[in-house]
Amino acid sequence: MTICINDVLNKLTEPVDRLEQTVDGLESGDPSTAVKGIATTFMATQDVIEQAIAAGANLIISHEGTFYSHHNQGEALQHDPVYQQKQKLVDESCIAIYRFHDYWHRYRPDGIMAGLVEELGWASCVIEHQPAASIVTVPAMTVQEIAECAKRNLDIPYVRVVGDLSLTCTRIGLLAGYRGGGALSIPLLGKENVDLIIAGEGPEWETPEYVRDAVHQQRRKALIMLGHAQSEEPGMKYLSKRIEDWFPAIPVHFISGKHVFRMV
Amino acid sequence: MTICINDVLNKLTEPVDRLEQTVDGLESGDPSTAVKGIATTFMATQDVIEQAIAAGANLIISHEGTFYSHHNQGEALQHDPVYQQKQKLVDESCIAIYRFHDYWHRYRPDGIMAGLVEELGWASCVIEHQPAASIVTVPAMTVQEIAECAKRNLDIPYVRVVGDLSLTCTRIGLLAGYRGGGALSIPLLGKENVDLIIAGEGPEWETPEYVRDAVHQQRRKALIMLGHAQSEEPGMKYLSKRIEDWFPAIPVHFISGKHVFRMV
Repeated sequence: MTICINDVLNKLTEPVDRLEQTVDGLESGDPSTAVKGIATTFMATQDVIEQAIAAGANLIISHEGTFYSHHNQGEALQHDPVYQQKQKLVDESCIAIYRFHDYWHRYRPDGIMAGLVEELGWASCVIEHQPAASIVTVPAMTVQEIAECAKRNLDIPYVRVVGDLSLTCTRIGLLAGYRGGGALSIPLLGKENVDLIIAGEGPEWETPEYVRDAVHQQRRKALIMLGHAQSEEPGMKYLSKRIEDWFPAIPVHFISGKHVFRMV
Repeated sequence: MTICINDVLNKLTEPVDRLEQTVDGLESGDPSTAVKGIATTFMATQDVIEQAIAAGANLIISHEGTFYSHHNQGEALQHDPVYQQKQKLVDESCIAIYRFHDYWHRYRPDGIMAGLVEELGWASCVIEHQPAASIVTVPAMTVQEIAECAKRNLDIPYVRVVGDLSLTCTRIGLLAGYRGGGALSIPLLGKENVDLIIAGEGPEWETPEYVRDAVHQQRRKALIMLGHAQSEEPGMKYLSKRIEDWFPAIPVHFISGKHVFRMV
C-alpha cells in the first residue's frame, strides 16, 4: 500500500486538537507524493538535507524552520545567497520538509520532553509533567555528576552551568528548547522548590542571574543550560521511533545536527 | 555644590529626545537625595549591590533590570524568597538603582557600542555606525586570533564560535546585547558582506545556523558570540568614565559582574 506524505502528516497531528495558529506545516514538497523514506531532525540545515537525500528520504520532519526564524522569514531572505543556494537544493531534490513543532509540543506528555527524559535515562523519575516543564526526582547526585551524565547521554561536548558544581541535587526542573527564561524557570526554583533547572536556552540575564543571586544568598540552587538543539534533538530521535512503529514499511532515519558552537 | 540623583539622571538623558516608551527609570531610591558615589554595572546583582554599598556609592546605574526580566517582573516575584531578600537589601540600604538602557543605546554613536569598540581596541577601525550594529575593518586576522583578542581585551574566559577558526577576516559586523538574532545579523553577512559577526547573544538556531549553512556552502563566514553581559559591560565601563568627566567631584566605580556561566 502506498503511503503518501499526507498520510504521515495526518498521523502526526491526529492526537492533538486542531490548532488555529501554528508554525507547523509543509514548507516544501507535494503532500500527495508517495513516501520513500523519512528523516527526522531538529532543523533542516543544508548538511542535514544532503544527508537525508543521500539516505533515500524524500520527507524531512524538522522541529524548527528551515530559514533561521521561528516565523518563516523566507521572503525577507529572497536575495540572500545562502538562502538561494539552500532553496535551490530543496527545489531540485523535490524533498518535502514538514515542520512539526507546535503539535509535537502539545502531545501529552510533550513529545519533545518525552524524548528528553528518555534520552537522559530518567523516564521513570518523572513526578509531574506540566505543560511547559517537567519535574523529575533522581538519586542524589552533584551538579557536576548530573552535567557529566547529561553530556554523555545526550552526546554533547559541553554544557553551561551556574552554581556550585558540588551541590547535591535530587529534585530537577526540566525545560526543553527556548523555555529556559525567567517566567517559566523562576517559579520552578521558587514555588516548586527544585534544586536544579536543566534547560535548553533562555535569555542570559534572566534565569542565570536569578540563580547567581540565589547562590550568593547561600541558597542551594543551580542551573544547567544544555543548548536549544541539544535539549530538543532527543525528542526528534524519539519521534523517529514512533514513526517506525506507525509505518513499519518506511525507512526512518534520525539525523543529528551536532553542536553548532565550538568553545574558544 | 550638592549634586542630587536627579541632576545625574537629567545629564544622562539630556542628549536624547524624550522617549515616550522606555524601560529606563529609577527602580529604587529618592531622586532628591545627594549623590555620594556612583557605581555603573551591567546588572545590579545581589553581589554588585553589596560591592556598590561597600564602595560608598548610593546610586547604581545599571544597564539591565534588577529582577531578571526586560520588562520589570518585580510584582510577579513578590512571594519569591530570592526577590524578597534582594529587595530587602535595596530597601534597607536606601540605595538608588537607575536603569539606563534605551537612552544609552540611543546616543549617537550608541553608548554601549562606543564602549565595546573602545575596549576591543577598534575605535579607529569603525567604518559605519548603523542604529543597531557597527561595521569595523581590522588588519587581516584569523577567527582564532580575533577570538583570543576579544577574550583578552574584554577579560572573558571563553567565546562561542561558529565557522573555521583559520578563516582570515577583515570586515566585521558588531552587535551588542541581544541583537545577535537573524533579523539583524543575516543582512550584515549577506548584503553588507561582512566576514564575521561578533555579537552578544541571540537565538541559537538563527544566526549560528545561517553561518553553519554558509560555511557548508563553502562561503567565508564566521560568528563569535561573546555573551550578552560581556558585550555590554564595556559600555557601562565607558559610561563610568563619561560620568567622571561630567561630575569630577563624585567618586565613580565600574563594577563587573564576571561571567555568570562556567563550562563543564
